[in-house]
Amino acid sequence: MAGRIEARLRELGITLPVPMAPVANYLPFVVTGDLVFISGQVPVMDGKIIRTGKLGGGVSLEDGIAACRLCFINLVAQVRTACGGDLDRVMQVVRLGGFIAATPEFSQHAAVMNGASDLAVALFGEAGRHARTTVGVPSLPLDCAVEVEGLFRIA
Amino acid sequence: MAGRIEARLRELGITLPVPMAPVANYLPFVVTGDLVFISGQVPVMDGKIIRTGKLGGGVSLEDGIAACRLCFINLVAQVRTACGGDLDRVMQVVRLGGFIAATPEFSQHAAVMNGASDLAVALFGEAGRHARTTVGVPSLPLDCAVEVEGLFRIA
Amino acid sequence: MAGRIEARLRELGITLPVPMAPVANYLPFVVTGDLVFISGQVPVMDGKIIRTGKLGGGVSLEDGIAACRLCFINLVAQVRTACGGDLDRVMQVVRLGGFIAATPEFSQHAAVMNGASDLAVALFGEAGRHARTTVGVPSLPLDCAVEVEGLFRIA
Repeated sequence: MAGRIEARLRELGITLPVPMAPVANYLPFVVTGDLVFISGQVPVMDGKIIRTGKLGGGVSLEDGIAACRLCFINLVAQVRTACGGDLDRVMQVVRLGGFIAATPEFSQHAAVMNGASDLAVALFGEAGRHARTTVGVPSLPLDCAVEVEGLFRIA
Repeated sequence: MAGRIEARLRELGITLPVPMAPVANYLPFVVTGDLVFISGQVPVMDGKIIRTGKLGGGVSLEDGIAACRLCFINLVAQVRTACGGDLDRVMQVVRLGGFIAATPEFSQHAAVMNGASDLAVALFGEAGRHARTTVGVPSLPLDCAVEVEGLFRIA
Repeated sequence: MAGRIEARLRELGITLPVPMAPVANYLPFVVTGDLVFISGQVPVMDGKIIRTGKLGGGVSLEDGIAACRLCFINLVAQVRTACGGDLDRVMQVVRLGGFIAATPEFSQHAAVMNGASDLAVALFGEAGRHARTTVGVPSLPLDCAVEVEGLFRIA
């Protein structure tokens, strides 16, 4: 069973990035007891934001979903570091918080956030099922289209 | 003292709903240690959203308050399941997060969120007093007027 | 080492306010285990909100930063009470959540929130480094320009 989640990442065709350093005076994650609080992640790939703008205002549902999926990949990269490289130590994705940059008229936030939630379950199975809060926001740092924060329980 | 909180629910004239299943690939709550993280609840009754729109833009203060109260009722329905049906196991409402769909001009978010906070104290007494964060949002899933998430400590 | 953080407050020229009481039926903080969940703090000084309005719409970056710094001071005042007056019991600033009242076009939320994060590190050193989520919001209670919530670990 060693490397079970790493194997699953390969099956899903996902290569985890080098975890992004925060852009300011804070940490990517803090471990307290068996809980890992991970800073809000944005849709960054290879150091470049790949989705800016608003849902309901130029960003398609499909692109929003992909952006949330990427945020979750970035959360996994951070929790891997928190676990000393061993993702099999992830016991539970406890909670995800999804912030969707959206117009006042937009209402499909849940579908957008599924980009993160569906990957959580695809990757971690039952342990990937989580509590979730999803809301719209008028704007995000660096004009990102979405931001996802995470709370994980590790062994 | 058995069924103390259930008795209080009856005194308050509240019938808890069957807890709503999440609309996507996540859980209504996750228990970790003695903490229950509950997904953001919306003003749903009998499977139907009863309050859409924005505070400051068509939804009255009174209706916003009632919608937050309903969100808290839905949180209680979830935590009852987390407690195996025994609400007397609720030790503390630790934190509520209130998201109020609002116009940029709206400023009475705290009064709206009191719909949840006041019921927490009415139902659980001192154990119902909680930390709280209340903010405006431009839009919520399915155009809901409010959304409330909760963190409870249980025995 | 007794009064180490109090000494640091003096070096920084900061006098902690009397902690503000919540404006409604909730608590300024809840302690559960070694975690202190602190309610969202606004830029209040001597009982008066000192910064209203929106980033990107009349509030300057500099004023937003100062407002977040003040929110953090108010968080520290609350956690001091949680620690029975002894700030040396703060083991870690675990997480800060920053809500920036902003226009849809605003994108410098991270810089604004640094007003809180930089003070956390200036005051608590390594223990002040935290996980962080920063988002825009259309409006906040009482038209405040920013709101910051905190999670601290104490001894």
